[in-house]
Amino acid sequence: MKKIFVIGAGLSSSDLIKYLLDNATALDWTVKVGDLSLELAKSKVNNHPKGIAVPFDINDNKQLKDAVAWADIIVSMLPAFMHPVVAKECVGQGKHMATASYVSDSMKALDAEAKQKGVTLLNELGVDPGIDHMSAMKVIDEIREKGGNLLGFISNTGGLVAPESDNNPWNYKFTWNPRNVVLAGQGVAQFIENGQLKFIPYHRLYSRARTYSVLNYGDFEMYPNRDSLQYCEIYNLKTIPTLIRGTLRKAGYCKAWNVFVQLGATDDTYKVPNSEDLTNRGFINSFLAYDPKLSVEEKIKCEIAEANDPVVFEKLRWLGVFEEKKVAISNASPAQILQKILEGKLLLEPNDKDMIVMQHIFDYEMDGMKFRRKSSMVIIGQDTVHTAMSITVGTPLAIAIKRVLTGDLKEKGVVIPTKPSVYLPILKELEEYGVKFIEEEEEIK
Amino acid sequence: MKKIFVIGAGLSSSDLIKYLLDNATALDWTVKVGDLSLELAKSKVNNHPKGIAVPFDINDNKQLKDAVAWADIIVSMLPAFMHPVVAKECVGQGKHMATASYVSDSMKALDAEAKQKGVTLLNELGVDPGIDHMSAMKVIDEIREKGGNLLGFISNTGGLVAPESDNNPWNYKFTWNPRNVVLAGQGVAQFIENGQLKFIPYHRLYSRARTYSVLNYGDFEMYPNRDSLQYCEIYNLKTIPTLIRGTLRKAGYCKAWNVFVQLGATDDTYKVPNSEDLTNRGFINSFLAYDPKLSVEEKIKCEIAEANDPVVFEKLRWLGVFEEKKVAISNASPAQILQKILEGKLLLEPNDKDMIVMQHIFDYEMDGMKFRRKSSMVIIGQDTVHTAMSITVGTPLAIAIKRVLTGDLKEKGVVIPTKPSVYLPILKELEEYGVKFIEEEEEIK
Repeated sequence: MKKIFVIGAGLSSSDLIKYLLDNATALDWTVKVGDLSLELAKSKVNNHPKGIAVPFDINDNKQLKDAVAWADIIVSMLPAFMHPVVAKECVGQGKHMATASYVSDSMKALDAEAKQKGVTLLNELGVDPGIDHMSAMKVIDEIREKGGNLLGFISNTGGLVAPESDNNPWNYKFTWNPRNVVLAGQGVAQFIENGQLKFIPYHRLYSRARTYSVLNYGDFEMYPNRDSLQYCEIYNLKTIPTLIRGTLRKAGYCKAWNVFVQLGATDDTYKVPNSEDLTNRGFINSFLAYDPKLSVEEKIKCEIAEANDPVVFEKLRWLGVFEEKKVAISNASPAQILQKILEGKLLLEPNDKDMIVMQHIFDYEMDGMKFRRKSSMVIIGQDTVHTAMSITVGTPLAIAIKRVLTGDLKEKGVVIPTKPSVYLPILKELEEYGVKFIEEEEEIK
Repeated sequence: MKKIFVIGAGLSSSDLIKYLLDNATALDWTVKVGDLSLELAKSKVNNHPKGIAVPFDINDNKQLKDAVAWADIIVSMLPAFMHPVVAKECVGQGKHMATASYVSDSMKALDAEAKQKGVTLLNELGVDPGIDHMSAMKVIDEIREKGGNLLGFISNTGGLVAPESDNNPWNYKFTWNPRNVVLAGQGVAQFIENGQLKFIPYHRLYSRARTYSVLNYGDFEMYPNRDSLQYCEIYNLKTIPTLIRGTLRKAGYCKAWNVFVQLGATDDTYKVPNSEDLTNRGFINSFLAYDPKLSVEEKIKCEIAEANDPVVFEKLRWLGVFEEKKVAISNASPAQILQKILEGKLLLEPNDKDMIVMQHIFDYEMDGMKFRRKSSMVIIGQDTVHTAMSITVGTPLAIAIKRVLTGDLKEKGVVIPTKPSVYLPILKELEEYGVKFIEEEEEIK
């Protein structure tokens, strides 16, 4: 009998826990789910005979020690900054651990000790990071194996609203942490394109968005992520002339979002004095020059070129940013105020479905010819519990956990899914859950 | 006999030391000047019979203790972040201290102990902060005294090149730390205008510059500083509808500088990989989209609207930013690379003179009428030692030190020059050194 302890029963744990319980009888597992909210843990275990729901507080060191002592593998679905404390305890007690998050420096520091103790630390096994690594490496390894030379790799992912629930002028709803959406892109985007190192500062990121079409889902806009350059190392593409990773939004989003960026309304570095007294309209006006005659609407069209586009202006109006309505949030940064305003309009409704879109574009040359291969995945959520996000974050992680427990995944230390022995079986099983990539290839001139 | 210890003999100490030595015989002072470079200290003391030059390392705690023990007052001309260590030692030993810098939190924390020990901690007694406080408070107090009600206060200062040395298309040279000039304005400018709180993000700061003319020195552009709101408190102007503090440049500067801001070339938050291999041209190109046909010059005109102005473009070309010349600086941020390029062109030449321009604009109402009073100061350096910067930073500080030693300045604890008893005698004596304000007043309709 193997014992799995899942810490955190939030939204993205639903399909992870479901997979583990669905396999628990056949594989003789016990699945304990701990959460600050016992109710939430119970709702995910749903009285399954092999499941146990318990109250769990990560700040209670005794609880953590006992959980690790009990389990064969610990799954941390906590916010990423909390993983290291779990990981340390696991390695200390010689137990395996799994997360969907990026490998942090403190996780990396445990690699040697984990290897020595025969412990596996699974990381980056969600959707992004996770499915992106696996699906990209599969094609990269295939192209290399047949003798192709990679010229370019562009990899784009977006968490969006499903077409059937897409009923607002932004073609966007929050399907993930709204705060991260408001702050998205801050810093500088660094990537390499045709051999040239490129930097895009935040204030020009959204105006330099590029358009891609994905299968029959229409046009999407992509803005580059901060971190593309490090993938030259991670994917062993050190001399590739073009490597860009980006975030996808539906066409038309970036020009409108850029209005907020240009205003300065996404700034999270200072607090607006007396923000509780502000109205939506007053908030927008605080970023526009004083004028004794012009209205806020007139000023925004004058000062921010994008707002002068009627389509963009309608998106802004629809959000209610020009309304004399109190923002009702105190001691808040512009980003926090904007988030509050957006949450009034862009939250998922009870019957809404979400969608994950991922597309890799590989350019390569072989036998004197050049080819472009696209590998695209679109997955739509089943409902508000089994969202596309939960399915794509939880399922690959759960499959990897199974493979650790069955002994099929033998790697020790810090593991991310960039090796065929790790990613191939997971990708194969993911297809049963609807997570599959459609490949298209054409010769390019 | 009174003993003064000056730590730091750099550029801005010249006129401070000169004033102290000029008064040393009459007032029976000994002036010790300590610097890491004994040569530099010697050059400032210049064999004066009441002066002593010594090697001094602020990181040597024994040296600091001995210096404080010896002196009646310690003057710290070190970089601002080093003042607290000096201040702590001074208060500990019950000795006075003087700096030209802003009051830091750790300085503020010493206020109670200093008061209890009868110690004076002079701060903000240079030009900005310093002369700005004194000259503004003088007019504010005058207007209040005669029953006026202040409606607006705009206060602008610039460190520039003197007209007789102004021979480049930017009408600008570095007369102060070039790094601070490259980073100027980063963050968000916050101020109040006609009762409305206003925020300007960095990426729109230079495009929202305003123009002011100062005496017969022509037109200057002003961009607001980060910190205007705190002056409502410092100057006791809590209900004033307009309060803006800004930085002055010669007309035409801001539009051209904005090209660098828009590109992202002033970013100091990341290092450019392999920066030592870059050329000036490659540096600029890294911020422009890849294009197989267009030149860097063509792309910058397309992407950055300001660069399409021939006057702006000529400023850029003159700097050499399009040249295939190695930047020759390794592990550097964009801001550091840009600084290196600018230092090739914008440093003061041996015979150049600098200039400090300061202008306050006060709007007030009295007896049902409205008035605007301008109070303006322009001071031009004598040479590259007795610069306008050195005169205006060092002289007010030196006068205040004299007044502490003669017992005329009686305030204890942390002192900044916002009270008439502090600022009036200093302003009066400053006139002898050419530091005087010209006042203009008109009725406004």
